[in-house]
Amino acid sequence: MLERARSLDAADPLAQFRERFDVPEGVVYLDGNSLGCLPRATPARLEQVVREEWGRNLIRSWNSADWIHLPQRVGGKIAPLIGAQPHEVIACDSVSVNLYKLISAALAMRPGRKVVLSEPGNFPTDVYMIEGLEKQGLAERRLVERDQLLEALDEDVALLLLTHAHYKTGELFNMEALTRAAHEKGALVLWDLSHSGGALPVHLADCKADFAVGCGYKYLNGGPGAPAYAFVATEHHIADNVEDSALRQPLSGWMGHARPFAFSDDYTPAAGVDSLLCGTPGILGLVALEVGVDLIAEIGIERLYAKSQKLSEFFRQCLAENGVEMELVSPSNPAERGSQLSFRHEEAYAICQALIARGVIGDFRDPDILRFGFAPAYLRFEDMAEAARHLAEVLDSGEWQRAEFQERAAVT
Amino acid sequence: MLERARSLDAADPLAQFRERFDVPEGVVYLDGNSLGCLPRATPARLEQVVREEWGRNLIRSWNSADWIHLPQRVGGKIAPLIGAQPHEVIACDSVSVNLYKLISAALAMRPGRKVVLSEPGNFPTDVYMIEGLEKQGLAERRLVERDQLLEALDEDVALLLLTHAHYKTGELFNMEALTRAAHEKGALVLWDLSHSGGALPVHLADCKADFAVGCGYKYLNGGPGAPAYAFVATEHHIADNVEDSALRQPLSGWMGHARPFAFSDDYTPAAGVDSLLCGTPGILGLVALEVGVDLIAEIGIERLYAKSQKLSEFFRQCLAENGVEMELVSPSNPAERGSQLSFRHEEAYAICQALIARGVIGDFRDPDILRFGFAPAYLRFEDMAEAARHLAEVLDSGEWQRAEFQERAAVT
Repeated sequence: MLERARSLDAADPLAQFRERFDVPEGVVYLDGNSLGCLPRATPARLEQVVREEWGRNLIRSWNSADWIHLPQRVGGKIAPLIGAQPHEVIACDSVSVNLYKLISAALAMRPGRKVVLSEPGNFPTDVYMIEGLEKQGLAERRLVERDQLLEALDEDVALLLLTHAHYKTGELFNMEALTRAAHEKGALVLWDLSHSGGALPVHLADCKADFAVGCGYKYLNGGPGAPAYAFVATEHHIADNVEDSALRQPLSGWMGHARPFAFSDDYTPAAGVDSLLCGTPGILGLVALEVGVDLIAEIGIERLYAKSQKLSEFFRQCLAENGVEMELVSPSNPAERGSQLSFRHEEAYAICQALIARGVIGDFRDPDILRFGFAPAYLRFEDMAEAARHLAEVLDSGEWQRAEFQERAAVT
Repeated sequence: MLERARSLDAADPLAQFRERFDVPEGVVYLDGNSLGCLPRATPARLEQVVREEWGRNLIRSWNSADWIHLPQRVGGKIAPLIGAQPHEVIACDSVSVNLYKLISAALAMRPGRKVVLSEPGNFPTDVYMIEGLEKQGLAERRLVERDQLLEALDEDVALLLLTHAHYKTGELFNMEALTRAAHEKGALVLWDLSHSGGALPVHLADCKADFAVGCGYKYLNGGPGAPAYAFVATEHHIADNVEDSALRQPLSGWMGHARPFAFSDDYTPAAGVDSLLCGTPGILGLVALEVGVDLIAEIGIERLYAKSQKLSEFFRQCLAENGVEMELVSPSNPAERGSQLSFRHEEAYAICQALIARGVIGDFRDPDILRFGFAPAYLRFEDMAEAARHLAEVLDSGEWQRAEFQERAAVT
């Protein structure tokens, strides 16, 4: 097993990139879908920004270091990873805040319709942000199981909001078919790419998606709580300084103004995705995110996806050869899932803790899901073999029954 | 002049703290009210968080390094600077986003009232965030000159939203009197402390303020685009997990949920200011902010304020002795202004650029304001004398008329 893994690693065209990340010794990190590893270039770049740009040049760096355009620059680099044009993506705020902006914008573009359609069990923040607008009286939340979404799409639906790869199971939606079905009913579509962007090629333009949001700290390796990104298709952009046009969002802060430094009392939205900016952008977070995005772009999203599929399939083989039988809740066809495999086990929490104690870091999702993410940029086939062996040993030994693994911490 | 300045520096009890900041050689930095200087402790702390907490411990740091409580920890340290209790303040998002949350919360607490009262010429983002809610049909923006605010406070006003120290002039509102007047009409009050928090003692509790927001990157030295903070008086906190209680805000992201890791479909707000959290907090920004806040807290807000008043008054003396006569738009009584002095001059932009070329960094505010901020934590009386001398020389020489100083950049 280990031997075969090593020969796969020797033949892996992406093997060299592992060294560009600071992966801790003795750790098999299967949680890059929760917090991506640290790129080796990040600390030096951050130090330069802090010591030089902030420390030496101070306020002047908004111009001299072009901090002012960092949200657009980082967004533009994310764009090709998700099938968008550079001017259609901006990096700012959190996924949650960007969801609020874009759900609001969609509702404003479909007057007379209030329903935002999603599925139960979608990532909580997606459905909570709909709920926030519902409590304001501006939206109506409709959650239906994924196999009933097409039926639930009617003329009341302003927006279909779905997460492309499900956070628990990794199951992928057919972005093209659902977007088409929504458009046929006159609804707009917003895709949450948190668990697909940076792990597999996303084709927003080809699928004619209207809006998208995505996460900077998972597969883009931007660091804990990194800024998120938001996409708006060109057809919905506001033309330069035209007041009564398409995109409108209510978090109309000064950085989204067409002329922020005119300090006028009235808000005129900037053109295009610039109007999604709200407050002053967090430069440290954006700088770290840029390093991660540059690295993923350098490796190449098609190659990453190819390796991701091989890794997860090899992990399944290793489990089988180690005699591990657990209920797979992810699609068994790799083309139908993101870069993860999830299993159901009633002792998932304790097993996850026992694995972590052995240096195999996956994660647990309430109530009974053991989730392994395969960040292809820095994982080896050897890691798959090792993780499977540890999991088999944990299950065989029953060590997960020890009290220390049973006690739940606040965050997992 | 310079001699007197140096003797004042020699007697300054805060002089030692300048060394705790990385103030560039040859620069007189009078723009700490726009972006505060870099604390010397920040780079090492950030490096530790990046290399150790992120790089080595990865996802585990949410527990082991207590990232999960960083918004509350930093907020709790800001609290005594603004006259609040630790559990009443949280650090997160931007000033703009926090304004939206709290304006919304106030409107929800005053059903039947829609007016949000402020003044024209308030910092743009404050009035733009009201405008965002107005366009959603949820608020009505009323802007009246500051001397007519009391008359404009009527039974339609849900919220009075004012900036404590005006960003252009530094003029302070009487927080206690205005809060009382608003309460007498049944309105709530939200104070924007961006230009006062960290520069002078603010007494939110004594003034019975309901809400406040403030900025992390000015007098708190948290770095470019640092997270902001938000205050909610205890009386408006939601009791633990009680659904139908006071504080409600529509940016109901997963981190503001009472049990974020239960991943339920329905939103139950966390208790108190925790429900102001929305998306995953940006750890790098919070870590840098904490260093700045710790340092300001160590110096002591009362001492900072005393020095701030001395600095600005000494600057005015230096200007007078250098024969500089410019129209002061800040209150001439230091008790009535924040830590800044602003002057009107039709060539303010070019003069500001000529000063910057000499290493004296103040800033320009459209259309004709030359603004000097006095961050008392790291400025010397010597800096005042030098700045005044340079300003006199710039004006006398007419060097600001050179083309290079006349051409306006995108951001200033």
